[in-house]
Parts: sequence; C-alpha cells; structure tokens
Amino acid sequence: MLRLGVDVGGTFIKAGVVDENCAILHKVSVPTGGDGGYPAVVENIAHAAELAARVAGKTVADFEGVGIGIPGLLDPKSGVVVLAPNLGGWRDVAFLEAIQKLLPVPVRVGNDANCAVVGETLAGAAKGCENVVMLTLGTGVGGGIIADGKLFVGGRGLGAELGHMVLQMEGETCGCGRKGCIEAYCSVTALVKQTRAAMEKDPHSAMHAFAKEAGLVDGRTAFECAKKGDRAALAVVETYTRYLANAVGSLVVAFRPDVVLIGGGLSNQGAYLMDKLNALLPQYVFASDILGVPPILRATLGNDAGTIGAAFLDRV
Amino acid sequence: MLRLGVDVGGTFIKAGVVDENCAILHKVSVPTGGDGGYPAVVENIAHAAELAARVAGKTVADFEGVGIGIPGLLDPKSGVVVLAPNLGGWRDVAFLEAIQKLLPVPVRVGNDANCAVVGETLAGAAKGCENVVMLTLGTGVGGGIIADGKLFVGGRGLGAELGHMVLQMEGETCGCGRKGCIEAYCSVTALVKQTRAAMEKDPHSAMHAFAKEAGLVDGRTAFECAKKGDRAALAVVETYTRYLANAVGSLVVAFRPDVVLIGGGLSNQGAYLMDKLNALLPQYVFASDILGVPPILRATLGNDAGTIGAAFLDRV
Repeated sequence: MLRLGVDVGGTFIKAGVVDENCAILHKVSVPTGGDGGYPAVVENIAHAAELAARVAGKTVADFEGVGIGIPGLLDPKSGVVVLAPNLGGWRDVAFLEAIQKLLPVPVRVGNDANCAVVGETLAGAAKGCENVVMLTLGTGVGGGIIADGKLFVGGRGLGAELGHMVLQMEGETCGCGRKGCIEAYCSVTALVKQTRAAMEKDPHSAMHAFAKEAGLVDGRTAFECAKKGDRAALAVVETYTRYLANAVGSLVVAFRPDVVLIGGGLSNQGAYLMDKLNALLPQYVFASDILGVPPILRATLGNDAGTIGAAFLDRV
Repeated sequence: MLRLGVDVGGTFIKAGVVDENCAILHKVSVPTGGDGGYPAVVENIAHAAELAARVAGKTVADFEGVGIGIPGLLDPKSGVVVLAPNLGGWRDVAFLEAIQKLLPVPVRVGNDANCAVVGETLAGAAKGCENVVMLTLGTGVGGGIIADGKLFVGGRGLGAELGHMVLQMEGETCGCGRKGCIEAYCSVTALVKQTRAAMEKDPHSAMHAFAKEAGLVDGRTAFECAKKGDRAALAVVETYTRYLANAVGSLVVAFRPDVVLIGGGLSNQGAYLMDKLNALLPQYVFASDILGVPPILRATLGNDAGTIGAAFLDRV
C-alpha cells in the first residue's frame, strides 16, 4: 500500500508518494509560508500531502498514512513541537493534533534529521543496518540514530541533538548560544568561518580567486582549492576533517553503530572527504585496535531521505 | 522468587541474594584471584554465587537466575567478554558459555557500570524513571544509560562507554591512550592530578597539611579543603565541577534523561558537589531555557547497586 511522506523545510514543504519498497513515485513541493504564522503552515502541510496524492491520481484517504518531518524539537508521541525556529518560531504547539484534524488517515511526526536516518536505513546507504549514526552537515549539524533497529530519540523524544553535544569544552560559540558544540566546529557555517579566517591570513591562497568567481565563500571553497593543492586550503580541510572525525569518534563510543553516515551539502565531497575521515577515525575511538571502527559513508538519498523516512516513521 | 546477583571487581567478587523488592538479604565476598588466570576467576565467580546461596540456606538451583556484572567490554547477548583489563587481561573469552556450565540456572551478564544504573533505576535514586544517565566516578569514569525503560548498550552491547566520549578535543591524555576523554577530566584520577598541580603552584594551600595528615592526595583533598575556604582548593573544585557539568550537559543533550546520577567514591561529597553541578548544568545544555534540565542526584545504593542490577538484568 502507498504512503505519503512530507518533509517540512524552512522554505519549501516537499511531499512524496512512497511505495512499499521505499521508492518515491511522485513528488511535489509547495512554499512553507512561515510568514503566515503557525495555522498557515499547518494548512500548507496538509495541502502538500493532498497535492502529492492528487498527482498520483488519488486522495489522501487512499493512503495507509502520512508521515511528517519537522525541522525542530518535538515529542513524536504527543506530537507537540516544542521549538521550530525555522518555521516562524513555533513554540509548544500541538502540531499532531492540529494536522490530524485536516487529514483523514493516521499521521505520524518526527524530527527532520531523524526522518533522514530512517530513510537512509530503510533504503539508502545504511540499508539493512541495525545500528546507525547519521550527521547532516548544513547550516547546523543534525543528528539521527538507529539503535537496535529502532529510531533512538531520547527522553520525551527530545534527545539525539548530536550537533549540540560537546566537542571542545568552553570552545567556539555555537549558534545555540553555548560554547564548544559539535555544530560550532563541523557545520558548513563553521567551515565557512574557518575558510574565511584562513583566507584573511593568506592573501595569496587560491581560495580568493575561487571565491571571487563563485561569488561567495561557501562549503566548497576550501575543499575545491585543497584538491588543487592550495596549501592554506589543505590546512583548512585537514583541521576540519579532524574536528569531524573526533566528533564522529565520540558518537561511535556512545552508540557503536555498524555504519556512520554523512549527509547534507558537504557530503557531495564524496570519497575525498570520506577517505580522510575513515583514515582519521581509529585514533578517536576508544579501543579501536580491538573493536575496530565502523565505516563512514556518504548518505545516498540526498533530499529524498527525509520524505522516505517520514513515510515510514512507524516502521522503526 | 529469589535471585542471585554477582558483582565482579578487580580485587573482590561480591555476591548477594536479592528478593523481588530488590533488597539484598545476604551477601558474601571472595577474592577475585585474577593472578590465577581466566579459568580460576570463572570458578571463583561460580563459587561466590554458591556461597551466597548457602548463606541463605539454599543452593544455586533454588534461585530464578544468576546475573553477573563484569568490569569490561562485553556483548550481553553472546556473553563474550571482549576486554577486561582488571580481571587479568581477559580478551575475547566466551564467558557466559563458561560460567553457564558451572551454574544450574539461567545466567545473564552485563557490564558493571550498566548493572549499577539498573540497580539504581529499580531500587535507588532513579527509582521509577524511564530515562536515566549514570556516571560512576572512580579510577576511571563508568557510564550507564536507561532509555525508555530499557538498558541502552549500543551496537553489539559495546556502546555507552560514556567516560571515553570527548570533552576536550585533543586535550589531556586519557588512561585509554587517546586525548580529551571525559575520563581524562572527570575521574578521581584526573581530580587527583588537578589537585597535585594546584598544590605545586601554591605551597601555602591548606591542601598540603590535609594530604600529609591523610597520608596521600586523593579525591577528598581538594573538596575538604575547599569546604574550609582554602582558595587553591576552591579553584580546583570550581574547575573540576565545570568539567563534570559540561560532560553531563553533553550527555543530557544526547539522551534527555529524567535524572542524572553520580556514583562512585566522589559522590560521597553529596550536596556540596550536587548543588554546584545542578547550578552549572543549564549553561551546558542545549535549549535548557525551554526544555529545562534534569536534576543531578547522588546515587544511593553505593556498592550494592551493581549486585542488585546484576540480579535484575533481565528486567530492563
């Protein structure tokens, strides 16, 4: 039977019709409309689900259920979204109750990074794995965990905020206002900051020309110039990959996953990034000489992971 | 029906007869005998269980089962102990298989720190809680997690090594050989190191006289002198509690427990330590202003936690 998966982002709501094999048969995208306030976004989410159903020649009632991924802190059981800054500042809203009134089939909700790890575990790079840690590197660092075949969300569904675990006590200030979070070192935002600092120190680095041509400094600047042998860019990449390998190592010690997945825009660096991370990982994992370390792999479903995972939230 | 719990330590094996209310009715202690090699320790463990049964006027066959806590890395399902340095260097031994041959009732095995959190959750400071994080501060830092009412052990049972998660990237060298682990900052061993360093810097500190009288520098030196207002000791305690609060904060972000327990010798500092930790915790927890923070409490069962938890390993 078919399912509907909805991935709610700050700008767009993506909805997809997903079959039992986790293949997306149809997908649609509508503006999130966060400016219109909470009720407007809830209506837009229902609308996206209806639209995806219609594209498949059906109505929502024809589906087994609807799963929805939300970029925020939420309790998947009660469906209360405690905080969702990217959706116009939702705070303590009974989202599941509200959206369920607009949709005629059972609705399930989850955090977007959690939906992504579910998607990758059912149909992507971690297919068949019982224990998975996934980091999504973007503006922030999202985290998702599959433990013993189940989605691990912590107490009240509010744990697994891996990006806000500590990497450097009293270190760099994080977007969350605290210091030393993994996100403050391993997000694309942090990488851009590290890249800018290196560029300021080295006016002869090839990164200046690269950024000028691209029109901005972004997550690719240091990586692309490092590949061409630019010394300052190489140093940025070496430092950044050490940060990330250390963060992954700490998560391996806690969760001992079969595989670690890297998602988000930076994962497009593919083997260049993964090879470096895999080489560094053993030195950051307790008893790695005896227990080994899991492989760090690039997530393969890209933006579809969240939609597929949302559709199958009841399966993990 | 009665159960037998066995807590295997580096020096002594403690065994107890535990009733359905998690009360220890009888307990015995025998030398571990690690010098005799693996087979000798296995026999001593069986002997400890038999002795505890006999003290209760019974034989092992009269009990529902035997649970055994081991200080090492092990897979509770297969019962293979991958590594147990304190038991004379066990490495990849099929312990459950070996001990089961010597005992006539079902045997279950678990890591000792995991047994402790089970005991505290069933009968101690976390009684009735569904989500618990416990840190045992001693020579090292042991960790145990109850998530959604179940013991959380990670993939192959080898996760939850909380003491070896990162606190300070590339920081102090840990006993495990890596750098920056929680254990390298928060164990009693680390506290003693921090205390010695402060004493060297301040020859007038009251810690010198205190240590001289006690005959050694230990985990109490800085705490006891801080309580009397010694400035150097106060600084050690302030720094140490910040380390520990930061480590706890990171674990709260990952697991969102209802309560955090501190066990081990240092927990004898009681309210003096807990009050400081509870005051510091919010600044180290993501979204603490919205989600709040769990209380940090002193574990209450002391050395009995491991024995009780071992006896009830099948219940969580």
